Amino acid sequence: MTQQHSLGVAVVGTGRMGADHVRRISEVTSGAHVAAVVDLDTDRAKAIADGLEGCAAYGDFAEAMASPDVDAVLIASPGPAHEATLLAAFAHDLPVLCEKPLTPDAPSALRVLRAEQALGHRRVQVGFMRRYDREYGRLKSLLDSGELGRPLMLHNRHRNPASAPGFTSAMLVNYSVTHEMDVTRWLLGQEITSVTVLCPRPSANAPEGLADPQFVVFETDGGTLVDVEIYVNSRLGYQVQAEAVCENGTARIGEDHGLFVSSDGRWGGTVTPGFVERFEDAYDRQVQAWVDATRRGEVTGPSAWDGYAVAAICEAGVRAQTEGGPVEVQLVERPALYR
Amino acid sequence: MTQQHSLGVAVVGTGRMGADHVRRISEVTSGAHVAAVVDLDTDRAKAIADGLEGCAAYGDFAEAMASPDVDAVLIASPGPAHEATLLAAFAHDLPVLCEKPLTPDAPSALRVLRAEQALGHRRVQVGFMRRYDREYGRLKSLLDSGELGRPLMLHNRHRNPASAPGFTSAMLVNYSVTHEMDVTRWLLGQEITSVTVLCPRPSANAPEGLADPQFVVFETDGGTLVDVEIYVNSRLGYQVQAEAVCENGTARIGEDHGLFVSSDGRWGGTVTPGFVERFEDAYDRQVQAWVDATRRGEVTGPSAWDGYAVAAICEAGVRAQTEGGPVEVQLVERPALYR
Amino acid sequence: MTQQHSLGVAVVGTGRMGADHVRRISEVTSGAHVAAVVDLDTDRAKAIADGLEGCAAYGDFAEAMASPDVDAVLIASPGPAHEATLLAAFAHDLPVLCEKPLTPDAPSALRVLRAEQALGHRRVQVGFMRRYDREYGRLKSLLDSGELGRPLMLHNRHRNPASAPGFTSAMLVNYSVTHEMDVTRWLLGQEITSVTVLCPRPSANAPEGLADPQFVVFETDGGTLVDVEIYVNSRLGYQVQAEAVCENGTARIGEDHGLFVSSDGRWGGTVTPGFVERFEDAYDRQVQAWVDATRRGEVTGPSAWDGYAVAAICEAGVRAQTEGGPVEVQLVERPALYR
Amino acid sequence: MTQQHSLGVAVVGTGRMGADHVRRISEVTSGAHVAAVVDLDTDRAKAIADGLEGCAAYGDFAEAMASPDVDAVLIASPGPAHEATLLAAFAHDLPVLCEKPLTPDAPSALRVLRAEQALGHRRVQVGFMRRYDREYGRLKSLLDSGELGRPLMLHNRHRNPASAPGFTSAMLVNYSVTHEMDVTRWLLGQEITSVTVLCPRPSANAPEGLADPQFVVFETDGGTLVDVEIYVNSRLGYQVQAEAVCENGTARIGEDHGLFVSSDGRWGGTVTPGFVERFEDAYDRQVQAWVDATRRGEVTGPSAWDGYAVAAICEAGVRAQTEGGPVEVQLVERPALYR
Repeated sequence: MTQQHSLGVAVVGTGRMGADHVRRISEVTSGAHVAAVVDLDTDRAKAIADGLEGCAAYGDFAEAMASPDVDAVLIASPGPAHEATLLAAFAHDLPVLCEKPLTPDAPSALRVLRAEQALGHRRVQVGFMRRYDREYGRLKSLLDSGELGRPLMLHNRHRNPASAPGFTSAMLVNYSVTHEMDVTRWLLGQEITSVTVLCPRPSANAPEGLADPQFVVFETDGGTLVDVEIYVNSRLGYQVQAEAVCENGTARIGEDHGLFVSSDGRWGGTVTPGFVERFEDAYDRQVQAWVDATRRGEVTGPSAWDGYAVAAICEAGVRAQTEGGPVEVQLVERPALYR
Repeated sequence: MTQQHSLGVAVVGTGRMGADHVRRISEVTSGAHVAAVVDLDTDRAKAIADGLEGCAAYGDFAEAMASPDVDAVLIASPGPAHEATLLAAFAHDLPVLCEKPLTPDAPSALRVLRAEQALGHRRVQVGFMRRYDREYGRLKSLLDSGELGRPLMLHNRHRNPASAPGFTSAMLVNYSVTHEMDVTRWLLGQEITSVTVLCPRPSANAPEGLADPQFVVFETDGGTLVDVEIYVNSRLGYQVQAEAVCENGTARIGEDHGLFVSSDGRWGGTVTPGFVERFEDAYDRQVQAWVDATRRGEVTGPSAWDGYAVAAICEAGVRAQTEGGPVEVQLVERPALYR
Repeated sequence: MTQQHSLGVAVVGTGRMGADHVRRISEVTSGAHVAAVVDLDTDRAKAIADGLEGCAAYGDFAEAMASPDVDAVLIASPGPAHEATLLAAFAHDLPVLCEKPLTPDAPSALRVLRAEQALGHRRVQVGFMRRYDREYGRLKSLLDSGELGRPLMLHNRHRNPASAPGFTSAMLVNYSVTHEMDVTRWLLGQEITSVTVLCPRPSANAPEGLADPQFVVFETDGGTLVDVEIYVNSRLGYQVQAEAVCENGTARIGEDHGLFVSSDGRWGGTVTPGFVERFEDAYDRQVQAWVDATRRGEVTGPSAWDGYAVAAICEAGVRAQTEGGPVEVQLVERPALYR
Repeated sequence: MTQQHSLGVAVVGTGRMGADHVRRISEVTSGAHVAAVVDLDTDRAKAIADGLEGCAAYGDFAEAMASPDVDAVLIASPGPAHEATLLAAFAHDLPVLCEKPLTPDAPSALRVLRAEQALGHRRVQVGFMRRYDREYGRLKSLLDSGELGRPLMLHNRHRNPASAPGFTSAMLVNYSVTHEMDVTRWLLGQEITSVTVLCPRPSANAPEGLADPQFVVFETDGGTLVDVEIYVNSRLGYQVQAEAVCENGTARIGEDHGLFVSSDGRWGGTVTPGFVERFEDAYDRQVQAWVDATRRGEVTGPSAWDGYAVAAICEAGVRAQTEGGPVEVQLVERPALYR
């Protein structure tokens, strides 16, 4: 394997997620290397680049993309910065892996969508990494096989141990439930048409003013009913569970197993402490799949349409938190590029 | 133990449930015997009584209650017949175990309630036998202990293999979900204040015109959110599961376990085939508890108030099936007798 | 149900097990009552009898058996007292439920066997109550069905939280593993032909001088290999597990399930604290089955032959603890009465 | 990352395992590439090398090792060829990952050991890849933590769906149980001192003459008792399970979970079909760990001593199959290099 075949990736954003992607591409992913790191904080970018052979540091993403060493772009900067970076990557016709959300709202997502359409081919893969999780993959295979009949309902549980400071009621929908929005659409191959949000009396664990937990209900254009329990101060650990209720049976993923201990009058094991531990492999596989597809000249995985659709569902969801009742999801007609 | 200490029970109604209760009292329950069986079909009543020593057959329940051999009444006749039988039992001041529903609607249940109040003491125990199931019992103990904090949500699954002929969309609420109405109120010690019913596209297994499955949401006066999946043509077997999501943890019951088989590329076991197998012990314990309390001169277990409340919740639920949205539950003020 | 149909039982021995059987027959079992309690400590016998209507107290078992009120005998006295009580019951041709062990050693068990043969019909049921446990029952049904092919191996785990004071290394075999001796013979329908006992370095939890845990291996006349882990100071709780490895699959029972809790970074539940909780139902069903059979004039369940065989296996097991290697089990030819 | 930092690996042997390692190093492993493939069948070697840029094909391993492009050697040829290849690698002082077995018998393993000692530093990592499996890793961490006290017993289950043609009774020990020999030594940090093999009546699934299943017992120098059920024609799928029984609790790994289905009267999931699916990740992690260590100039993982010890245990095990009784394991004194 010679150097020219290794994909030179520019990583934009070097916060927690960005730094982790740098490590992943350097140490885990086969067939790629970090050719550039980009951060407004150029000192931080330089510190990272210094540890990597053949890696340059930039304060400006456009400059990085102009480098002949950069073959592809991984965007891990804050959401509001995504649109400009994506458009710059399109200008260089570079393939992009963009961390979720595609952009922070539906109108900006739609602008990205239109820009990609103008290119005439897909360039963006959105970072909905649950699609690369083994358990979700097995669930999708089972649903696609039709072995259990058509899915009627999908029950989801999404529990975090504790919310970060500054986490708001809207972020339970915009930040956490977005994962269930994506996997719902992907698992079912159906579009979400309305969102309802129900709020029980908040947990004593929730910071003052935070509506936690929430119970979110989706209706789909295929007539499937989807519910999501989101509880970000559950204390118990990190649990992501899904159960598809089909005509002739149910299928569940996300039970915590692996090491089963009996001691001191209790049986069981430990709950996964966080999303890194739970979805570490999915993150690895996501980046590897993107590198592999890019080297083959293809774009696969969640598209800009998926990013846009989730942004539109979020908007309906946040309205539903305050307005009550089912709020309809508004989507433009699906462009041919994403069919 | 001499004869005068054995409780003489009149079993009213000798259909499937009635015949099963006759067997239970004769062969399983300690401290009681069947002193009378009552059925409009006197031939059937006689056939059963003939097989039991010291048991008389009656066509009329009032006549049976006048017998000096009858100490207590178990009502297992169809729901519409309950009110008259209950009032007759009150006239003789006899303790009653009345199969659910107490009566078929809230107004008639309220009349029973008023009649019992007039007696000045409780005489009725309603046949919500899940309260006597070991797993529900352990769940209630855990919730009552406060160990996991306050309950925030309660997720319920109620699956039957196939519905009986003539089963209607309203019966999913009136006949099946009534169990979850009772256990919700009992587990949480809270009253249900509204009901919402959501219907996905019906399963291909559902007979023409039956909205199956349904997803029912309760709100409670304690701010707990409760959801019930009811699917009566699930094919998979009989599954009754509950998960309480509390502030600091979750607790689940109703997993199918017990015999764990690995063969032919599969691991697992058999799903309980029906409610008899699942709740056999609960039925036994319910009748035993009623006999024991009666012999002590007490009335325990689900009261006429519980029967009335469930009837009122059913009315809200059936309206919610057609009207949509949350339908408020209307209850009279709780009489002192039931506080 | 009139008095003459209720079986009058004399309970011999009023220690822990005896007192529990008195409670069971009085309050749980249908169709029987305690007609007599027998204990050398007549004050204790009287104290118990005084709480039960129609129950007499005796210091001498022979005197009790002569009472016309006594229809059957339940022996719950210490093992060394069993032989004399059994022979007395035979003299009155009374049916007996005899707590395990039948007698403390093989020669005395053989004398009981011969005495019962002399009667010409079975009178004794031995208290191997695991045969009445639902899970063992389901395992036996599965093995008998042949669905998984012939059993090749049977792995057993038998764990107690802590041993009683005075518990000896021999008692791990004589007192604890006897249950596995019985269920092995019953589940497989095969006779045990040799016993090997292996002892790892003792646990720090074991009292000085106690070889705990031990690992016991049986060979059977059907070529099945059986292993038993016995660990009586496991601290973890009470676990009794069995796994049958058959030609085409395995079947396991005894996992602790029922209430599944996720909290504080752990998932799981509580281990059953003791044998009463685990086998409560089996004890109830055992006595009920004995009462039912006795009222039909039959003797079912584990026979004196089973009691004798287990005594002989124990002798081989205790020798194997010190001699090492497989020790052959010596049995007389099986009498026709027990075929 | 530039070419000179990528580790050039010569893969010796291009059968099933070798071809899989070529794929792994090319497509999965970060920081390494296949620089040479070696096979007596040079056409096969060429066919593979042609698909890989910068990869040369050789018929002779010594010639490959002389290439300046080769930094390290992965041996995946048949066991009898290992010794010569290992000695050649030592001659070039190249780091080696050698598939198990190190060599086919203890004397040849000892010669390799002595040759590595002569080098004065470790060069060999043996392919006991279970040490890189996540579940075994979690079990070892738990045991090392001392949280459950000292291990007293280790129960292992090793089940394959069907044996390959020509599989012999000795191979159940030499080929299959070798994995348990290694993980026993690794998990416990103790040496195996004796082996006993017990054989129940063979399964009807076993080919004529094959003693399958077998039950193998190890004693260790730490006083721990280890048992292994090996059943290579179990039909049920591939199951590798381990349970450590410690002073204060037990820990189990290897349950089949992940996708939990309820349908058609059954609950459960699918058993892993084979070792590739079960240990895919462990194989990947093993090679990655070897590459990482090699690039750091270190040798980690299972040593030649581990390979030798397992060969010696195998010899005792095969003798125990025919001689019966515990057969003592004979080991030379452990050289300082491996302490």
